Amino acid sequence: MSRRYVNQLSHGDSVDEAFLVADKQLRANRQGNLYLQLELRDKTGSVGARLWNATEELARTFEPGDYLLVRGKTQIFQGSLQIILTHLDVLDPTRVEPEDFLPQSSQNVAKLFNRLRELLLAMHEPHLRALVECFLIDEEFVAKFTAAPAGIKNHHAYQGGLLEHVVNILNVADRILEFYPEVDRDLLLTGVFLHDIGKIEELSYERSFAYTDEGQLVGHLVMGVEMLRDKVERTADLTGEPFPPELLLRLKHMIVSHHGALEYGSPKLPMTLEAVALHYLDNLDAKIHTFGREIRDDPVRESTWTPFQQSLGRRLFKGTTARDTPEGTDEA
Amino acid sequence: MSRRYVNQLSHGDSVDEAFLVADKQLRANRQGNLYLQLELRDKTGSVGARLWNATEELARTFEPGDYLLVRGKTQIFQGSLQIILTHLDVLDPTRVEPEDFLPQSSQNVAKLFNRLRELLLAMHEPHLRALVECFLIDEEFVAKFTAAPAGIKNHHAYQGGLLEHVVNILNVADRILEFYPEVDRDLLLTGVFLHDIGKIEELSYERSFAYTDEGQLVGHLVMGVEMLRDKVERTADLTGEPFPPELLLRLKHMIVSHHGALEYGSPKLPMTLEAVALHYLDNLDAKIHTFGREIRDDPVRESTWTPFQQSLGRRLFKGTTARDTPEGTDEA
Amino acid sequence: MSRRYVNQLSHGDSVDEAFLVADKQLRANRQGNLYLQLELRDKTGSVGARLWNATEELARTFEPGDYLLVRGKTQIFQGSLQIILTHLDVLDPTRVEPEDFLPQSSQNVAKLFNRLRELLLAMHEPHLRALVECFLIDEEFVAKFTAAPAGIKNHHAYQGGLLEHVVNILNVADRILEFYPEVDRDLLLTGVFLHDIGKIEELSYERSFAYTDEGQLVGHLVMGVEMLRDKVERTADLTGEPFPPELLLRLKHMIVSHHGALEYGSPKLPMTLEAVALHYLDNLDAKIHTFGREIRDDPVRESTWTPFQQSLGRRLFKGTTARDTPEGTDEA
Amino acid sequence: MSRRYVNQLSHGDSVDEAFLVADKQLRANRQGNLYLQLELRDKTGSVGARLWNATEELARTFEPGDYLLVRGKTQIFQGSLQIILTHLDVLDPTRVEPEDFLPQSSQNVAKLFNRLRELLLAMHEPHLRALVECFLIDEEFVAKFTAAPAGIKNHHAYQGGLLEHVVNILNVADRILEFYPEVDRDLLLTGVFLHDIGKIEELSYERSFAYTDEGQLVGHLVMGVEMLRDKVERTADLTGEPFPPELLLRLKHMIVSHHGALEYGSPKLPMTLEAVALHYLDNLDAKIHTFGREIRDDPVRESTWTPFQQSLGRRLFKGTTARDTPEGTDEA
Amino acid sequence: MSRRYVNQLSHGDSVDEAFLVADKQLRANRQGNLYLQLELRDKTGSVGARLWNATEELARTFEPGDYLLVRGKTQIFQGSLQIILTHLDVLDPTRVEPEDFLPQSSQNVAKLFNRLRELLLAMHEPHLRALVECFLIDEEFVAKFTAAPAGIKNHHAYQGGLLEHVVNILNVADRILEFYPEVDRDLLLTGVFLHDIGKIEELSYERSFAYTDEGQLVGHLVMGVEMLRDKVERTADLTGEPFPPELLLRLKHMIVSHHGALEYGSPKLPMTLEAVALHYLDNLDAKIHTFGREIRDDPVRESTWTPFQQSLGRRLFKGTTARDTPEGTDEA
Amino acid sequence: MSRRYVNQLSHGDSVDEAFLVADKQLRANRQGNLYLQLELRDKTGSVGARLWNATEELARTFEPGDYLLVRGKTQIFQGSLQIILTHLDVLDPTRVEPEDFLPQSSQNVAKLFNRLRELLLAMHEPHLRALVECFLIDEEFVAKFTAAPAGIKNHHAYQGGLLEHVVNILNVADRILEFYPEVDRDLLLTGVFLHDIGKIEELSYERSFAYTDEGQLVGHLVMGVEMLRDKVERTADLTGEPFPPELLLRLKHMIVSHHGALEYGSPKLPMTLEAVALHYLDNLDAKIHTFGREIRDDPVRESTWTPFQQSLGRRLFKGTTARDTPEGTDEA
Repeated sequence: MSRRYVNQLSHGDSVDEAFLVADKQLRANRQGNLYLQLELRDKTGSVGARLWNATEELARTFEPGDYLLVRGKTQIFQGSLQIILTHLDVLDPTRVEPEDFLPQSSQNVAKLFNRLRELLLAMHEPHLRALVECFLIDEEFVAKFTAAPAGIKNHHAYQGGLLEHVVNILNVADRILEFYPEVDRDLLLTGVFLHDIGKIEELSYERSFAYTDEGQLVGHLVMGVEMLRDKVERTADLTGEPFPPELLLRLKHMIVSHHGALEYGSPKLPMTLEAVALHYLDNLDAKIHTFGREIRDDPVRESTWTPFQQSLGRRLFKGTTARDTPEGTDEA
Repeated sequence: MSRRYVNQLSHGDSVDEAFLVADKQLRANRQGNLYLQLELRDKTGSVGARLWNATEELARTFEPGDYLLVRGKTQIFQGSLQIILTHLDVLDPTRVEPEDFLPQSSQNVAKLFNRLRELLLAMHEPHLRALVECFLIDEEFVAKFTAAPAGIKNHHAYQGGLLEHVVNILNVADRILEFYPEVDRDLLLTGVFLHDIGKIEELSYERSFAYTDEGQLVGHLVMGVEMLRDKVERTADLTGEPFPPELLLRLKHMIVSHHGALEYGSPKLPMTLEAVALHYLDNLDAKIHTFGREIRDDPVRESTWTPFQQSLGRRLFKGTTARDTPEGTDEA
Repeated sequence: MSRRYVNQLSHGDSVDEAFLVADKQLRANRQGNLYLQLELRDKTGSVGARLWNATEELARTFEPGDYLLVRGKTQIFQGSLQIILTHLDVLDPTRVEPEDFLPQSSQNVAKLFNRLRELLLAMHEPHLRALVECFLIDEEFVAKFTAAPAGIKNHHAYQGGLLEHVVNILNVADRILEFYPEVDRDLLLTGVFLHDIGKIEELSYERSFAYTDEGQLVGHLVMGVEMLRDKVERTADLTGEPFPPELLLRLKHMIVSHHGALEYGSPKLPMTLEAVALHYLDNLDAKIHTFGREIRDDPVRESTWTPFQQSLGRRLFKGTTARDTPEGTDEA
Repeated sequence: MSRRYVNQLSHGDSVDEAFLVADKQLRANRQGNLYLQLELRDKTGSVGARLWNATEELARTFEPGDYLLVRGKTQIFQGSLQIILTHLDVLDPTRVEPEDFLPQSSQNVAKLFNRLRELLLAMHEPHLRALVECFLIDEEFVAKFTAAPAGIKNHHAYQGGLLEHVVNILNVADRILEFYPEVDRDLLLTGVFLHDIGKIEELSYERSFAYTDEGQLVGHLVMGVEMLRDKVERTADLTGEPFPPELLLRLKHMIVSHHGALEYGSPKLPMTLEAVALHYLDNLDAKIHTFGREIRDDPVRESTWTPFQQSLGRRLFKGTTARDTPEGTDEA
Repeated sequence: MSRRYVNQLSHGDSVDEAFLVADKQLRANRQGNLYLQLELRDKTGSVGARLWNATEELARTFEPGDYLLVRGKTQIFQGSLQIILTHLDVLDPTRVEPEDFLPQSSQNVAKLFNRLRELLLAMHEPHLRALVECFLIDEEFVAKFTAAPAGIKNHHAYQGGLLEHVVNILNVADRILEFYPEVDRDLLLTGVFLHDIGKIEELSYERSFAYTDEGQLVGHLVMGVEMLRDKVERTADLTGEPFPPELLLRLKHMIVSHHGALEYGSPKLPMTLEAVALHYLDNLDAKIHTFGREIRDDPVRESTWTPFQQSLGRRLFKGTTARDTPEGTDEA
Repeated sequence: MSRRYVNQLSHGDSVDEAFLVADKQLRANRQGNLYLQLELRDKTGSVGARLWNATEELARTFEPGDYLLVRGKTQIFQGSLQIILTHLDVLDPTRVEPEDFLPQSSQNVAKLFNRLRELLLAMHEPHLRALVECFLIDEEFVAKFTAAPAGIKNHHAYQGGLLEHVVNILNVADRILEFYPEVDRDLLLTGVFLHDIGKIEELSYERSFAYTDEGQLVGHLVMGVEMLRDKVERTADLTGEPFPPELLLRLKHMIVSHHGALEYGSPKLPMTLEAVALHYLDNLDAKIHTFGREIRDDPVRESTWTPFQQSLGRRLFKGTTARDTPEGTDEA
């Protein structure tokens, strides 16, 4: 029987379900009695939970990243749903399906990956194609690349999000290169593929999303250049000739410059046609994705505006329903 | 017999040709003798010219924007070509073809305009389609819209440049909307069409390119909103119902926010999906165009870099010739 | 019998009074029992209120902007006064005097408006005077212009605040033009009058203060230019000749540039004498008003400093009482 | 017989006149022959001058700041007037009237100073009045304060310019305090008087305008606080009681904060009513003065715009002549 | 018997001890019952405390800065320790050792001061040495200079912190001048000594750390110049000759420019070798101190990162224990 | 016989000497006659040179980076010295001593390198010492590292400048670590050594100083991380164990963060003690070196200020001679 997901819970429900522990805090109330304040999640979202009269012993039996089987009842508290727990058991992680507990791309990962292969392996430039092949035959790389989110909180923040983001830009680039004949097609496609590869090590995303130490201290731009360098050395085996130095330079440049400005963490501004195209296509995809999600997910239906989004520095206009589904009026 | 254009002149040529006066200065040399320092242009570019031993009387007979028939000889001076004039006559403007003297879009304007009509008139939203029709049946508007450059110096700075810029973005938008289903197609296409209409009054572009007083004091964002407002009032006649207020708001918002940031002159940040998409598509097209032109037109063939571009805040990488002509085309 | 206003309540008072609902939230306490958390206001300020053991049914009977007749008792909670409600009834809005419930200008609106007329109708420039007349005979405009606040939270944030702000700048300008003979008097006065007219549609201020959708998406600078444009077309009827284009340009420019810098939302910098004068006079008035209110209204009497003001980026120095009433020491 | 001033010279005039040397350079032409390139000035402006076939010996006989009696002939060179010298003699400075050689306030300095005394000595606050008296009875201070410019190049850059600037702000403040009753009149007037006193030592302005070493290393804000401190110590002698510490603090604060922002060199933001009022009144006066001068002095009559002003970051709109002299007033 | 310090308390302890009141708030709980929320401190840190069922009368008997003898019991509340008070008495300040209640430098103040004397009195430049002597024989100055913290919250925020900071920079400067022979040793050492002297009046640090009114309105840079000026006047008595003006200028410049940038509150950029050296040495010492403290004091042992530090704009990397004690592995 | 260097030439000298061509331009004068405009250099500086009546054929015989034997005569032209050439011959590069033609460190490179070895090989941490050894036994690396300048134009812009800069910081760090016991000595020293290694490939410095393509497109921060990565892989061979991952992370972080701010091209802010120490020590050394050179090399002896330095955003105060040599006055 299938589980009941977080986004299916409502006020007054009885709960008897497994969750991933995203956060755990042992607190005391005003009388000094201890209670556990948890954040529990599955792939559809997260929900707060409290266990009154907890003990330090119990609190030590699990950590964030572990799975719990919990029993309790939901209620609305200060506008949000929470579960008042009556019982909890630590679960053996082998007994759960991990993919049930982290947000996933709504798109089919295998299909996305096939599309990636299709677009990239059709390139004509032999060194770039060989380079891409070196990445795609690296099973560890592929496993991580297809699992990683594109971010912790912002755009495409779910498993498979990085792949979805990259394939979407590849699709867009594929379509519009016709209008920009001076842009080198193979160089741009390879740059799109590589621009965020550093993120597969910058982030950790097995049980929860976080930055790795290396991600915080070095960052995915520099890490991506290092990963590119490793693979380039092996490319010569496939092509029988050394990777052209200027081509390598152009790829490294696309990686380090794709944030577009020093204050956004790119140590160099885009200085080639393909680098500047990558920068805008990357932003276009990320911003449309972010705006769309903010507008779609805003729980306050009656308001025409989302709340203020700190990371965007603005509120977004949702407008009236009529505007959101213009086809409806046509078909009526 | 066809004229010899500026870009066909080289050192030591005899010249006997008509030009547009782009700039005129009467100067004195160290001995106090007066000479005329002119900038002459045709649609392929501009060239300096000097007439030694000029008089104030002669200098008063014409102004920038007039046409001259000049005779003289070319020479290289400080790295640039100039014409040492022996004779000049003011030309009756009716005797020249104006389109020979201002830079033109390399693309066929009529074809571009047809493509614009094709894309816009295929929209389903009745009010937006009616609005576009109101613009397209306004002959004065169309004459200006198809003649205006997109800027004085930067991207698409030639007659027809605005149309070329708009049609290119429309083409791109048309292709990629499939990947962004949440973006309202008709709203985005209309916004692309309208975003720079203010430029047809912000700039003057009959004989040379300049900002109008209104362009400098008010700017094409605000002017575009005013022009939209005028047409919206007439749209109701075509549809028989008032233009939906929220739709008008969304269009105005796209115009005022398309520069994307306050410091770039947009009084509002993009706050809708279509406004943020417009901002990035506009930048993508403008920057690729600018980068391409800088790299292509750089006269110093042997350098792998363009000179520093003040407006871009960087030099651009041209690379070696091999890179510029991907082998693929060679093999064909 | 007159009402007891918010600023007259103190700890332990019994309350039986009508208020405007400024905010409403239904919450649950830790035991899951629902309660209502309200913000109630009248023209003198706002006060928090709680109704324990509320129901969803009750909560649905009214919304922010409605009037309530409430009974309860005041108490201090976490340093602020709040009312613990025992009873509430929704009031028919026709039974209250709306002006009792929104903050009002402390000055007489009719007197302010007369002063505005007096200053503006004494102008000599016929087109500017005709333009002003077109605004002043528009009853809907006048009703809004004399009711609007100048802002939601910052300076002159009360009904009539916009008028008070404009008249104060007009008074100041009237006095100091003698010292700046190069500034065109009529142009400056008209610009002062027009600079914020967009606010009458940018804000909604009937029952509470907020931004309209158009206010957020387009902004009062662009909206003001549109309103000016509408009236200018009618001005010709009064003067029998078209409004001089350069004069219109100068007015539009004053409106769009009055924030003084791109990062403050003006798409153009002030480029005329009158525009730069308007910018500084507007700021002078707004900042003196804001500083004065912050210093005057700070409830912590014994401190020589106000709390940190986020919007000003600083604390303000109140100093000792002696400094606030220097006359006192003189008279002693 | 009165001298012919720089602003009276035109092309082809014979010159036999005394000038102040503003700049001197000994150069060689392409053939290696030395010539002197001078900038000569009087109170109406400056003009370039050249002496061909100069010697190092001659060049050593005078320095910038000395006076020369020169003979020669004017000519236009590259759009500017210059004098081709045939003879020069170094003049004994006692034989010239220094005030003929530096730009002066167009207003009567004695009258301005009387107005300053009138406004300041009418203050009621006894310590502030005593403080002002201490400054005004200091003859050396008064001599410098009435001679200093307000700047090297920007607003009020002429002898007496500082006084003119201060008196103009005092006049304005005097008129508008009625509308800002919360602003302390005596404190504001004293702050206006003191805000730029540091400039009398920050600048040197005897024979030419420049920054002193102290001006560049310490700046007029800090120097002004030091000068205030010196005088405050003597104020007690006049009043018989110590200067109130908070009053002193408020004055120091007005001096250090009057630039209004850290990036403009104020180490503190304005945090009192009087400090913020001073900041805007100072800017209003300086900017109107600068805009007025740029528009009035632009030599290119036919253009509706001034050239780009680096220090203002913009061009200024001059408009058509009609606008500059509104018909109404002329015809009245 | 020695007291038990804040940093020795743990969950469940009985407390009967004297503390300094750092903050006091009288609040009401949801039932309207009043309670006291205090922040109590001694030299090792601070701890929250609550007294349930307090009265306004009790709350008026003491203020922040007073000493209390309290009885109660500790408990952990929301992750922090707090004391639930059962009793409190106001203490006569003469009965406590003030140095027990404010954080102190961990270094011996007398020793630090001797080192300061040693380094400064060994200078060769007679005027600078005399200037330093004038400061060091001023007992009031020395008392404050050795007691002041270097800041409220940031680096060296404890009694004696300013002295420790200055001596540390002096030690560093002393060692490295050998490698920078162009830097004037005596000038740099004097500048290091003087750069923050304004802080002894900018801050108040007797019972708690705060900014004085003068500190907020004028700031320690300007205040330091004023203090320097006072002492320089007396220096002549020791040396028998006036203090060299350029030397004074260089010292003032070092004080006003040592923050290194206008946006950090320096009205002038460093423009001498010694000023730029001082700026970097000051920052080096402050930042190493701040980073070290943040890493050392972070209570969450198991995390490899500190929490986000608002004032630094980043988190700091603590790494694993092995890295923190590298000697340990060597000795094993 | 030894050569006469550029810094020994004066007006009117006959020249018969070899120089490196730093720049070459073929120009035409007003009469259309061609001439060569050269910049010639040796290790002491550069000088302009002109050959009148040149031909295109002659101009093609050499390029910048070649050596010429020239004859001619010096003269002062517009304040600078230039050589009017009468003859030039292209020189075989094997006939000159390259070190005579590029600016060199004034310090002995071998001595500097020994000091580097001495400090680094005394480290205790075995992996860091092994890492340094891997670099120091790489002869190609050492050859470049000891030849490279630290920059093109700014600090240490001469052959050996990078080594001098690094050794100077090592010396400083060595001395002051005693005062910062929490800073890890070996980590800091290694970071100082590595922070700029990318510059040996970012710059080209054989015959003239320039950025390489990789330097401009990728930059020395990212390039340094790549070089570190290469060597780390070999370090394991020396130590027999893998390089500790966290140690590598800390080194990479020091390289990428050493510019200290995103806007200066560091993609990450310093987040460890050693990274922040490196940032300030690097800046201290670079700025003292730059200030010292600007003050020392300013050719205008009589001015107390250097000209405005664009890259520093300021002028520097040189002061009077007395201040520059304070010891002199002491010894007299």
